Amino acid sequence: MKAGVVGATGYGGAELLRILHTHPYIKVTSIYSSSKNGENITEHYPHLQTNFPLKLEEINPSKMAQQTDIVFLAVPTGIASTLAPQLLEAGCTVVDLSGDFRLEKSDEYENWYKKKAAPKEWVDQAVYCIPELNRKVLKDTKFISNPGCYPTASLLGLAPLAKAQLIKEDSIIIDAKSGVSGAGQAANFDTIYNELNENLKIYKVNQHQHIPEIEQMLQQWGFTSPITFHTHLVPMTRGIMATIYVSLNETLSEDQLFQLYREFYENEAFVRLRDPGKFPATKEVAGSNYCDIGLSIDKRTGRVTIVSVIDNLMKGAAGQAIQNANILLGFEETTGLSFSPIYP
Amino acid sequence: MKAGVVGATGYGGAELLRILHTHPYIKVTSIYSSSKNGENITEHYPHLQTNFPLKLEEINPSKMAQQTDIVFLAVPTGIASTLAPQLLEAGCTVVDLSGDFRLEKSDEYENWYKKKAAPKEWVDQAVYCIPELNRKVLKDTKFISNPGCYPTASLLGLAPLAKAQLIKEDSIIIDAKSGVSGAGQAANFDTIYNELNENLKIYKVNQHQHIPEIEQMLQQWGFTSPITFHTHLVPMTRGIMATIYVSLNETLSEDQLFQLYREFYENEAFVRLRDPGKFPATKEVAGSNYCDIGLSIDKRTGRVTIVSVIDNLMKGAAGQAIQNANILLGFEETTGLSFSPIYP
Amino acid sequence: MKAGVVGATGYGGAELLRILHTHPYIKVTSIYSSSKNGENITEHYPHLQTNFPLKLEEINPSKMAQQTDIVFLAVPTGIASTLAPQLLEAGCTVVDLSGDFRLEKSDEYENWYKKKAAPKEWVDQAVYCIPELNRKVLKDTKFISNPGCYPTASLLGLAPLAKAQLIKEDSIIIDAKSGVSGAGQAANFDTIYNELNENLKIYKVNQHQHIPEIEQMLQQWGFTSPITFHTHLVPMTRGIMATIYVSLNETLSEDQLFQLYREFYENEAFVRLRDPGKFPATKEVAGSNYCDIGLSIDKRTGRVTIVSVIDNLMKGAAGQAIQNANILLGFEETTGLSFSPIYP
Amino acid sequence: MKAGVVGATGYGGAELLRILHTHPYIKVTSIYSSSKNGENITEHYPHLQTNFPLKLEEINPSKMAQQTDIVFLAVPTGIASTLAPQLLEAGCTVVDLSGDFRLEKSDEYENWYKKKAAPKEWVDQAVYCIPELNRKVLKDTKFISNPGCYPTASLLGLAPLAKAQLIKEDSIIIDAKSGVSGAGQAANFDTIYNELNENLKIYKVNQHQHIPEIEQMLQQWGFTSPITFHTHLVPMTRGIMATIYVSLNETLSEDQLFQLYREFYENEAFVRLRDPGKFPATKEVAGSNYCDIGLSIDKRTGRVTIVSVIDNLMKGAAGQAIQNANILLGFEETTGLSFSPIYP
Repeated sequence: MKAGVVGATGYGGAELLRILHTHPYIKVTSIYSSSKNGENITEHYPHLQTNFPLKLEEINPSKMAQQTDIVFLAVPTGIASTLAPQLLEAGCTVVDLSGDFRLEKSDEYENWYKKKAAPKEWVDQAVYCIPELNRKVLKDTKFISNPGCYPTASLLGLAPLAKAQLIKEDSIIIDAKSGVSGAGQAANFDTIYNELNENLKIYKVNQHQHIPEIEQMLQQWGFTSPITFHTHLVPMTRGIMATIYVSLNETLSEDQLFQLYREFYENEAFVRLRDPGKFPATKEVAGSNYCDIGLSIDKRTGRVTIVSVIDNLMKGAAGQAIQNANILLGFEETTGLSFSPIYP
Repeated sequence: MKAGVVGATGYGGAELLRILHTHPYIKVTSIYSSSKNGENITEHYPHLQTNFPLKLEEINPSKMAQQTDIVFLAVPTGIASTLAPQLLEAGCTVVDLSGDFRLEKSDEYENWYKKKAAPKEWVDQAVYCIPELNRKVLKDTKFISNPGCYPTASLLGLAPLAKAQLIKEDSIIIDAKSGVSGAGQAANFDTIYNELNENLKIYKVNQHQHIPEIEQMLQQWGFTSPITFHTHLVPMTRGIMATIYVSLNETLSEDQLFQLYREFYENEAFVRLRDPGKFPATKEVAGSNYCDIGLSIDKRTGRVTIVSVIDNLMKGAAGQAIQNANILLGFEETTGLSFSPIYP
Repeated sequence: MKAGVVGATGYGGAELLRILHTHPYIKVTSIYSSSKNGENITEHYPHLQTNFPLKLEEINPSKMAQQTDIVFLAVPTGIASTLAPQLLEAGCTVVDLSGDFRLEKSDEYENWYKKKAAPKEWVDQAVYCIPELNRKVLKDTKFISNPGCYPTASLLGLAPLAKAQLIKEDSIIIDAKSGVSGAGQAANFDTIYNELNENLKIYKVNQHQHIPEIEQMLQQWGFTSPITFHTHLVPMTRGIMATIYVSLNETLSEDQLFQLYREFYENEAFVRLRDPGKFPATKEVAGSNYCDIGLSIDKRTGRVTIVSVIDNLMKGAAGQAIQNANILLGFEETTGLSFSPIYP
Repeated sequence: MKAGVVGATGYGGAELLRILHTHPYIKVTSIYSSSKNGENITEHYPHLQTNFPLKLEEINPSKMAQQTDIVFLAVPTGIASTLAPQLLEAGCTVVDLSGDFRLEKSDEYENWYKKKAAPKEWVDQAVYCIPELNRKVLKDTKFISNPGCYPTASLLGLAPLAKAQLIKEDSIIIDAKSGVSGAGQAANFDTIYNELNENLKIYKVNQHQHIPEIEQMLQQWGFTSPITFHTHLVPMTRGIMATIYVSLNETLSEDQLFQLYREFYENEAFVRLRDPGKFPATKEVAGSNYCDIGLSIDKRTGRVTIVSVIDNLMKGAAGQAIQNANILLGFEETTGLSFSPIYP
């Protein structure tokens, strides 16, 4: 299959190129950029030298539909809302990695993203999929809205308890921490090395646009109260950890808790549970598509702690996009994604 | 005043030397070590060359009482429990930076520290003091038990709400993050650079020995339920951030919340409140004795978030020890501590 | 082919497991450890969970010869000198990643390594190979001595000029810088996070054991004077940069210099030259088997600067070991190694 | 004395504020900014909260002359060339931290800086001073051109050998490495965290504007050949290491080499020599005004290696500026600068 990548000069785009380079069935044959078309990708990314002798091409939906079987949109939020419909109308299959089609309700989108929402008819066509939680929605679609990084880590951590209706309303607190690559290539005083190195920051307190994305899925599972969700910037490049605190509707033993999670994920290739007393660190999934989860119940408070880690550019972006594309295209879900984390 | 430092080769000890080097009234005249006596401190710490032409001496309480007016114990937990009583009996004034005398109840100590508790009569004599919260206890004592790093950040963040009885029972969750210097110089697989760099870890889940230290103070303020407290290791050297989540007994406006904190800390030199919408980052207190605090109420959940940052080696250890010593010795509390953070 | 890895709990070993996991023809079927046999590898390396359900086995040469077609020795220097001969005698094919068989002269080894040299008859059998420089030596051998990380970066940088006899005697200065993973898992005061983070160190000044390894190859090319070679420890995990300074025997234009290098490496898959005015950064080869090289002649001094970067665990260790093994085993040299660097 | 700081929102400016905050005789009473006047400095730098309740004022030379006794210019290169003359004409005493007045020859400046040189009559008035090397030039001046960071580390390392005419012509190679704070607050693709973290880069190969600054001083000492000088960007915030390679005109023993350096620097408060076999690391001077130097002669090549480290923002900028100002103003040279490095 021929794939096109729009926004190949961003980190999400670069990660798509890295993974698809060794994918047996999907080959990146065209890359696109609105601002840098005509340049070789290696001018921006010398690390791709010899591997990707591709020139960035202009964005032209009808031409792209001819050139490719599937298009990945690794573009900033606010761009896909107009570009995706054009590509879909031109006949492309589209995987959108941005946030533009994740929220079903336009007012929610506009409240949290502070941008104009995509047309409702296109939002309705977009299929939001974390394969481990709802892969069957990928049947008969040509338009995937790929989940956000924080929601992926958070929802994979919450799902077994949430779907079993075991979480007490009003009790979900997600203290999330991310490496800086989530901020992409924006260059300003807040993203320069000197301001972030040897520093730990909290940001978008109570205002992160991933809050409604997490709540939307929780609501499908019958959990209706708002969550508390905070995000921190950690001085490292890759990795997300969601430390999740919940209270339960009924008392579970630690054994029962682990049993619940083990059964829920027993057939999943990309979710790995740690044994009781062990918790995953972010480096243990670096460069891979895994989501690693650790669990604990505090005997003193009864509160459950769920620790969920992913590589934000992989399971949190490009890796999951390819996992979704594999399903949509009829390949084995793990195709091209079964490599090990890079460690140390 | 002549000061002695026991454990000068540790990071807490080195920080005491750094600060006291420019203190106008307290001068470090003797340094002690059980294992390295006879060595120059500069063999271990070349950065002290020319500043500290001192040799490490053996630990001999009666001699130390003659040589010094005040002794700082920057030794590992489990050492001070026997050393401090000997020094006190020899007539020394003692500031203990370890955890050995912080918990009033011996069984609590032994449960959490997994070590034998110090003799109860000496624990009873130790005065635990975070000056901003209870500096009056320092009158008429010769024995200070200096608070832990996480409890200092957490309790300064919680105090205004907790002392006003505004926090709902069972609602305190502290998600704490620390730089690696808190782990000191222990050398093992878990502390080497390669395992911690570009990595975020959670550790001692529900088992950190600072939990009972925080609860002990909360109990004095009438808050009796257990707290949830987790600690993470962030790839940076210095800094602690405590992200604190609480629910309130009654509804407060954001104005009322800020008013409460402003009044509580208005005369405190070392606590700085951020304006609404702003939150402190750890680097903003690096190398200094400040505790910086940011606040928020989430309109959707009613939950309050308190973000409290300190330099773990300063306000979390050596800086607060000197602040306490200043009070005990009758100096202005800020003496030798009023320097700016080092930034960037 | 069945491969065994001795020392799988080290970083070199872990990297062999990572790469061979996706190698189409070589599969790691057994892992060995002297100290941890009986343990699952995932107890030490949780990042390998699900990928490597292997137990560490004891080191037993005759059994290893039965179990495997090829054995990789990722053990500390001083171990392979006795283990490799035992394995070879038992009939194994051996790739030794340690320094024990790199130096032809036993007294050189003992001078620089401060250890007893391996038996001369076995040293003579070992084939030292950087494929781009001497791959033909791999014919008809069962025993590869895999080059060191610094020598690989340095010699690939020097080779085109050195083999053409263009370098002035007494003029080679190599200022090398490495990430910390080169130090492996040794745990002591010098390798803990707190001592290395935010710090730049020079080490083994004029005493690094890679000096004679570089000189040995240079001597084969007719360059006989000693070199100056210094190593620095940079606060990052992976990557080596060798900044190489040489004076020339005759005047070259920049065009001639680039032409020389382009021709030398034109058929090499793993050496990438940067264009004039551009220089590689270490991250541009991270996780990959590439060696990237940049060149410059200073018009004012006539001195040539060669900048050569590799990932020390890949082209500097495990990657090159597999590249060598591919040749020895008759596979395409790039098999299992043609993936992209991980960036950022 | 009342001091003004122009460019207080830059890192050099912030460092001046930090140090002068505890200086007993010089107090920062006014801060200036061309772009942010009217703002509180704490809007840009929350770490200064409570310490510096100052508003940024507009740049008005005659008003500045009335408000201050001395003005520090911590502005980008190209600004001071016009601003300094205005301030001097208005009667100010000026310490310029930029590169605009360091090179005596205008064509040199324009060649290397690619900018228009300052008027020659003002360049002639500027006094370039590294106190340890030429402090007597500070008599009877009101205009200091403060040296660059790399030249300070390099020249302090070279001076004892160079002034003794012991260095062979054409033999100086300086391989310099710097933390990122030297790049200031410029925000672009090359300075964002994601591009610099876990990465080592070489930059401005043979083109760094500090080359002529170093050569200008060497020429005063009779060394006339051009030097080779390369700069690398290390993933850390503060610190410069210059690894300097030189050949000697005559044979020296290691004892003689150390003797030469010890005598040269025996009365200097801010230069610290390491013992034979020991070398300084950058963290050992962090936050301080020290320059630490280690030395070695390689018996095999006869080449001398000098390792010189400074904190680029301190001895490489603000610290040396205050050291120079102390001399000019008649204070003890070490006033306000005798604090310890911050470690770890």
